Amino acid sequence: MKLRIVFQQLGLVMLVMCFCMLLITAWAAWQLYAADKTEELYAIYGLLGTIGVGSFVGLIMWGWGRYAKKGGDGMLPAFDETLGRREALLLVALTWIVGAALSGLPYFLWWHFNDEHLVDAATRSGHEFASFASCYFEAMSGLTTTGSTVLSDISGVPQGLLLWRAMTHWLGGLGIVVLFVAVLPNLGVGGKRLFFVEAPGPQQQGVRPRIRETARILWLIYLFFTIIQVVLYKAFGLTWFEAVCHTFATLATGGFSTHNASIGYYNAEHIGVLNTWMIDFITVIFMILAGVNFGLYYHLARRRFKLIWKDPELRTYLAIIVGATMVVSAYLVGSTIQVTDGSTVEGTAPEAVRFGLFQVVSIQTTTGFGTANFNVWPFVPKMVLLMLMFVGASAGSTGGGIKVIRVLIGFRIMFAEIERIFRPSVVRPIRIAGSTISTELKQAVLVYILGIIVLWWLGSIVLMVLEPAGSLSYVSAATASAATLNNIGPGLEQVGAIENYGFFSSSSKMVMALLMALGRLEVYAILVLFTPSFWRSE
Amino acid sequence: MKLRIVFQQLGLVMLVMCFCMLLITAWAAWQLYAADKTEELYAIYGLLGTIGVGSFVGLIMWGWGRYAKKGGDGMLPAFDETLGRREALLLVALTWIVGAALSGLPYFLWWHFNDEHLVDAATRSGHEFASFASCYFEAMSGLTTTGSTVLSDISGVPQGLLLWRAMTHWLGGLGIVVLFVAVLPNLGVGGKRLFFVEAPGPQQQGVRPRIRETARILWLIYLFFTIIQVVLYKAFGLTWFEAVCHTFATLATGGFSTHNASIGYYNAEHIGVLNTWMIDFITVIFMILAGVNFGLYYHLARRRFKLIWKDPELRTYLAIIVGATMVVSAYLVGSTIQVTDGSTVEGTAPEAVRFGLFQVVSIQTTTGFGTANFNVWPFVPKMVLLMLMFVGASAGSTGGGIKVIRVLIGFRIMFAEIERIFRPSVVRPIRIAGSTISTELKQAVLVYILGIIVLWWLGSIVLMVLEPAGSLSYVSAATASAATLNNIGPGLEQVGAIENYGFFSSSSKMVMALLMALGRLEVYAILVLFTPSFWRSE
Ligand SMILES: [K+]
Ligand SMILES: [K+]
Repeated sequence: MKLRIVFQQLGLVMLVMCFCMLLITAWAAWQLYAADKTEELYAIYGLLGTIGVGSFVGLIMWGWGRYAKKGGDGMLPAFDETLGRREALLLVALTWIVGAALSGLPYFLWWHFNDEHLVDAATRSGHEFASFASCYFEAMSGLTTTGSTVLSDISGVPQGLLLWRAMTHWLGGLGIVVLFVAVLPNLGVGGKRLFFVEAPGPQQQGVRPRIRETARILWLIYLFFTIIQVVLYKAFGLTWFEAVCHTFATLATGGFSTHNASIGYYNAEHIGVLNTWMIDFITVIFMILAGVNFGLYYHLARRRFKLIWKDPELRTYLAIIVGATMVVSAYLVGSTIQVTDGSTVEGTAPEAVRFGLFQVVSIQTTTGFGTANFNVWPFVPKMVLLMLMFVGASAGSTGGGIKVIRVLIGFRIMFAEIERIFRPSVVRPIRIAGSTISTELKQAVLVYILGIIVLWWLGSIVLMVLEPAGSLSYVSAATASAATLNNIGPGLEQVGAIENYGFFSSSSKMVMALLMALGRLEVYAILVLFTPSFWRSE
Repeated sequence: MKLRIVFQQLGLVMLVMCFCMLLITAWAAWQLYAADKTEELYAIYGLLGTIGVGSFVGLIMWGWGRYAKKGGDGMLPAFDETLGRREALLLVALTWIVGAALSGLPYFLWWHFNDEHLVDAATRSGHEFASFASCYFEAMSGLTTTGSTVLSDISGVPQGLLLWRAMTHWLGGLGIVVLFVAVLPNLGVGGKRLFFVEAPGPQQQGVRPRIRETARILWLIYLFFTIIQVVLYKAFGLTWFEAVCHTFATLATGGFSTHNASIGYYNAEHIGVLNTWMIDFITVIFMILAGVNFGLYYHLARRRFKLIWKDPELRTYLAIIVGATMVVSAYLVGSTIQVTDGSTVEGTAPEAVRFGLFQVVSIQTTTGFGTANFNVWPFVPKMVLLMLMFVGASAGSTGGGIKVIRVLIGFRIMFAEIERIFRPSVVRPIRIAGSTISTELKQAVLVYILGIIVLWWLGSIVLMVLEPAGSLSYVSAATASAATLNNIGPGLEQVGAIENYGFFSSSSKMVMALLMALGRLEVYAILVLFTPSFWRSE
């Protein structure tokens, strides 16, 4: 294990994050002076403090790695060869684990500076950001695009921190797409074969230029969507600040909102009916887009429409959305729909479809935005949503969950296995988009699905054990574990759409932060860290 | 599909069951006249009525098949060749599905004859055996060795019926051992490779003599255990009737008791402390023995002790019992243990181990006997029991669940998969008892485990949907599904150790009967019936 190379790259990641925080600090400073928003002062202190610590540590790590590479014993080979599989996995795991600590620091520092001067004694001790575990949870929830929050009053936090909070989504989402579409397949790690999209860019280059070229295209696509969505949001009544934050949260399938009522906040008279419907609609469309394999947009740019239309994962993904929406909406017709802002809406057919579609898309894409309090819905729509949590979005998207393609392959294997029992001589290869699924991939898919289920159970059980006896309901524990592991955000009952994760103990929060990282990095990158042979030098 | 051959064999099965009922009728008649137990009269009517119907239908089916074979178009080949894979699977499925209808008929007829003459109006309409769905549930629960009961007052049922009820366990358990150790492996169906025990008997025979020889040995082993356990029970205070019924329920890992309090009934002063402990101990020992692969007893008879000691499934099975008992007992020390008969026992260390061991063994072997009301235990021991429900007993035993060997293989595959992610070049074959697990077997094991989980969820959801909204708790639905699918018996909350399944709607009972059959026949034999290509002639 070439630890120095890993640390050098990790230092670079930290410096990039510090640079992003610097941009946000500048914006917050402008808010403070131009718009006289005094509450931004301590947010700026928190951000600057973090930038100081982060850039100091980042520079040391980066410099050490560079020195080691260029000088040192003079024997280390160049970067391209040294960042092997194990180094890449370690770097990925550390990026999220250390990155969350760095991202959570502004929240923590804000509160601690703030505490001294601004907030009255009653508010002081009660704030969620008083504990670093809560800040770490919030930051991991951001970077993993989970969107579970510890905050009971989101709008009470300065906008500078809320923008950084939304940006952690955006960075995390971009990081995941680049990682799973550009980096890992080219390093031969993980589910390359799951993407069914040829690596974009010229094929005759080395590993590093190819990764860089693919990453560049992905980043442009991501930026393109970001700009479009921000402009659309602005056109239909959001402020620039709200538009940017919600766009970051949508495209990353994150789910952090700047309002306690999430997107349900815009289900209000002051916004107007047209804007309410359009904001819902824009959010739904961009959630769906964010849940698609980003490799497909590369084909789109090349006008390979047939390839896109025939993509089995895209078809299944859209079919599930349509089917689930029909089921959920059918249950909402005629009921009184409880909006997340506390108001109610009569369940006419159009409203039932609007709320049903929004929640189905929000959960299946693993965004986790809310317009309705689905915790009070009947059993069947709740179960549909719970199943969608596990199915998740497409591979190569910013969404989490098991991923549609794995579920699809899993079902095909199961049906093939049924036939095999009475017709063992007939071997039917399983094909996806024309190519046969190899035995290794089949096994990997089955193990992955099973692994997610096992981790879900373990997570639920550990939460039940860590929380005081009788304080956490079974359903809350099970859905908190499912919602964090699959990077959804909200669950049911005590972690329902209008609740938050603030009440959990610090140890439970760390466990859920681990579940988020496990789910986000498709388990293995985290799990290998606990494998002794991973650390053994070869 | 040679349906006539299937029906001929099914007719034979029905005739054998009628013969067993005839023996019980004779015993009940002797009780009626010698011991003047008048309540047996209508049990005898119910049994005789069933024998009449069963032997009539059985004879027609058997005769039709024989005629078709010998005469008819004179072109049908001999039995050995015609009972192919598909016919065998259909026969197995029909044996349990039709067998349960026949086994449930005495309960139904007893009540309907009884109703006219004996029971007062208040009791009449309220009895569980008034509905045929309940009788079918009870009979399927018997034949699949599940042991879930609809009866709220077991001791109010005549002994003739209770003996028949216990015998359905015994017949079902024997059937499963013969099926999975002797018949299916020799037909090349299902998990032959899971047993790791060479088919007993000379190897140079044809398929049919080999099946017959193996079945004969298994039957003798089963009978041997039966006699020993009955004698031991009798020696420690049970009546012959109780001894036989509980032996049938133990060796089949069934769980039907003749008392409402199950084995907890013997935790009483009138029995004496020694007898209480000895009855517990005998039951534990024979439950453990019944949960072992019966192929190992063949090795034992041949004094191949090393082969037994090295059996990985046996070792894991025993290790899980020891480990789970330690965890569960630790939680019982110092608590007040609620016995199933309503009394309480102080949780001293010996009592904690006694009750902990009993419940762990009862659940892991999927017997489902109860001495303590584990529904009121803390979260961790309850979760341990729930996990044991899924692990289950050994392959080739009378126990249900996923089976220890599958869980063992599943875990090894998962660990191998973790290593593969960072060391894809190293291919480590998974070995069990020295032989490498084939790719097909690995996939079959993973699909099986996943299939059980999916069926469990489907079962839970269907139960929630079928029962009136709000009447069934999540935990009750989930554990009712788990306890029937894995052939355990009791679950938690509304289907806990001191509750019963009588309150479910008829449709829910039929769903759970289906779950029992699915679990008992290792899913495929039932699932193929729903596969169109299974029925297509080739
Ligand atoms: K999310
Ligand atoms: K049982």
